[in-house]
Amino acid sequence: MRRVDVVVVGAGYAGLAAARRLSRAGLDVVVLEAGDRVGGRTQTERLASGGVVDLGGQWMAAAHTRFASLAEEYGAATFDAPSTGANLFLTHRARRAFTGDSLPVAPHVAAALGFALWRLDRQAASIDVERPWAAKDADRLDATTVDTWLRRNVPLKQARRILELLLGDELSVEAGSVSLLALLVATRTAGGVKAGLTAEAVARLFVDGATGPAEAIAAELNDPVQLQARVATIRHARDHLQVSGQFGTIEAHRAIVAVPPPLAARIDYDPPLSAARDQLTQRMPMGSVLKTFAVYDRPFWRDDGLSGQAINTAGAAPVTADVTRPGGPGVLCSLIPGRAAQRLADLPSNERRAAILASHVRAFGNRAAKPIDWREKFWADDEFCRGGYAAYFPPGVLTSVGDQLRRPIGRIHWAGTETATEWAGFVEGAIRSGERAADEIRAAAGDAARVT
Amino acid sequence: MRRVDVVVVGAGYAGLAAARRLSRAGLDVVVLEAGDRVGGRTQTERLASGGVVDLGGQWMAAAHTRFASLAEEYGAATFDAPSTGANLFLTHRARRAFTGDSLPVAPHVAAALGFALWRLDRQAASIDVERPWAAKDADRLDATTVDTWLRRNVPLKQARRILELLLGDELSVEAGSVSLLALLVATRTAGGVKAGLTAEAVARLFVDGATGPAEAIAAELNDPVQLQARVATIRHARDHLQVSGQFGTIEAHRAIVAVPPPLAARIDYDPPLSAARDQLTQRMPMGSVLKTFAVYDRPFWRDDGLSGQAINTAGAAPVTADVTRPGGPGVLCSLIPGRAAQRLADLPSNERRAAILASHVRAFGNRAAKPIDWREKFWADDEFCRGGYAAYFPPGVLTSVGDQLRRPIGRIHWAGTETATEWAGFVEGAIRSGERAADEIRAAAGDAARVT
Repeated sequence: MRRVDVVVVGAGYAGLAAARRLSRAGLDVVVLEAGDRVGGRTQTERLASGGVVDLGGQWMAAAHTRFASLAEEYGAATFDAPSTGANLFLTHRARRAFTGDSLPVAPHVAAALGFALWRLDRQAASIDVERPWAAKDADRLDATTVDTWLRRNVPLKQARRILELLLGDELSVEAGSVSLLALLVATRTAGGVKAGLTAEAVARLFVDGATGPAEAIAAELNDPVQLQARVATIRHARDHLQVSGQFGTIEAHRAIVAVPPPLAARIDYDPPLSAARDQLTQRMPMGSVLKTFAVYDRPFWRDDGLSGQAINTAGAAPVTADVTRPGGPGVLCSLIPGRAAQRLADLPSNERRAAILASHVRAFGNRAAKPIDWREKFWADDEFCRGGYAAYFPPGVLTSVGDQLRRPIGRIHWAGTETATEWAGFVEGAIRSGERAADEIRAAAGDAARVT
Repeated sequence: MRRVDVVVVGAGYAGLAAARRLSRAGLDVVVLEAGDRVGGRTQTERLASGGVVDLGGQWMAAAHTRFASLAEEYGAATFDAPSTGANLFLTHRARRAFTGDSLPVAPHVAAALGFALWRLDRQAASIDVERPWAAKDADRLDATTVDTWLRRNVPLKQARRILELLLGDELSVEAGSVSLLALLVATRTAGGVKAGLTAEAVARLFVDGATGPAEAIAAELNDPVQLQARVATIRHARDHLQVSGQFGTIEAHRAIVAVPPPLAARIDYDPPLSAARDQLTQRMPMGSVLKTFAVYDRPFWRDDGLSGQAINTAGAAPVTADVTRPGGPGVLCSLIPGRAAQRLADLPSNERRAAILASHVRAFGNRAAKPIDWREKFWADDEFCRGGYAAYFPPGVLTSVGDQLRRPIGRIHWAGTETATEWAGFVEGAIRSGERAADEIRAAAGDAARVT
């Protein structure tokens, strides 16, 4: 039987960042991945017409310093996400071009939006992201949905509809499903409302796709990542762990479980995990998102002075952005979160595509009707992610069992973007969470003796 | 390899009721139970001092006709839950005795309570429990927590505190965690607010415990229930299912999964379940409840003209009832739901017991301080239930994926009290759900050919 220092469960950015750090510290690490690829909620696909699309996480904001550092270290080239030209704002009635951050809406709508975002920011500023349950009024904030907050604070329906769209895009689930306290935490871990909502607009993209650094980490590990190695059970023996699945059993001194909380719940732990930890994983479901890519021979919208970015409160594609690679074909990427994603996913693929393309035609004209290629991914279908971008907190969870999120149980440590205190829900958060879990293991002094 | 018509996963009342019905229809049925007992969320324990206590479900209300019918058929004797004498209502300041349904509160508090319950009832009356997402305003109702509803409709703090207590006792989780639409559905499946809230007061108890009929069903099945047979995978083969675990593999024409939704999620399905079904099980966590029993040589409180029922807005035991068996020792049963249960469970057992007994002493006097026996169960600790009474709907779930609750997937059918349209969350609902799932299989005509 193989014996190692640490088993890492999951080869997303969290697991790989943990394995990298431990490996470099001289520990013997094995990474077990249930799927047949590394990268987790990033997934790069090569196009026949040249270039790539990122079916999962793709944007790296200026504040994503750990992600940027990995990119640099592994020589993964990035470029400024296309943003030249006018953005579009579409409603049932209107199609308006605009530049800058301010949507082209009537002054009273703009004021309502500004006031709501200012209030959110101000409330978020008082939250301690390490212990949000200790906030003043935490119980009340956590017993309220974001939808209730919007109805109360944004009486103007048009402004509310825009905020629902922007927040839905950020949370990957309807505002009515998420705790207000959780939104404040998310806002805070993303450096404020504006940073969170505009992260995509001022970000960089990876020339060869966002999984590049993940693959580079996997390639440098002493032990290759074991793919299609789904962990079924983790057993605490007297002085080590036994991690088992169809791949066999590996003994380890410690483990880092770096998969989304609802999937961590599907591992069989022996002895069973505490009630509180089990409840946490029962109560943190994944958001869901459909991501589509319409590929054109060239980014024709630029001829009209358009950036390719569109916010659409009336169509199938609420948020669209230009993710064209330098020299590659033109690519419009749309993000559809939550229930709308499920509804589109339930359609036959040609109807789903037609619905999104209709949004593109309305925004960018008839040339958008006939893409030369089409790629899409509904993340709730992914067997080993079961949603995206991240797990969210429904009301009442943070204040009941939120303190279980990062707390190790015996020799088991927890990573994953959901456990991050900076940029939770982003690749950046995943990397930071993995490094934090690795540090926990390295800090477990006397106990850190190698078992191999 | 064993081949049967139907595999039933879970030997709670849902699974057993299904197996019984299919078995009697001449089908070959195997019941697989992960734990070492039948009865699921009912669990009877015998006391050294005589009689029994029910650590789980125990009360059978007048409207629980299917449960009553099983009790009668299997000769499980029942008796009226003790209710003679005065009930108690305790607050920080006062201890008041009362009889009847109306709490001894100031008239304006009583009016606020009455109005709130009337409003709930009226709103619930318009809900179609088969399709709650089709209700007028369903989106808004489902995007609102019960806590938000209480704050809006019950401005009087004292009345709100009482309703939080009563609803918490009914839902086994804080009002801030549950969707208002879900509360309306629960209210409706329990025959209205009053029937739901007072079910315990006007119910019957089982002389020898509530698992009696479950054990009787298990004993009459052709195949004994396989205990400690945890199902790890369910695989759809071309014309049958393969149900596997450490017990081996059983081939079946169809399966009924009759375990709580978050535990159904922990089975590995091949091919994987649809995104929508997977999301449902991610998004339906279990409530949690601590149930305690203080056993005394006799029901001494009756000497003081007390019923043993107490509602306490200030102590560790919010709801207490007399569950003394005829001729048995005196037993006070307390129910502590949600976060309070977790907090008590985190205490050393002597401190937990002392906290509950302090509530009893305040209610029933010093004789309550020294029980001759003590039993308790924190249901979130139960490895194969992982909570109680039932899974609940956080906001946004019913209107997104609620339609997946009872919808079979291939040859797999779903049972469990959560899937019931009458008395969901009660044993009665479990039984009805199992019988409904059995009927689905019998109704699947042409396809119903036996495979054995």
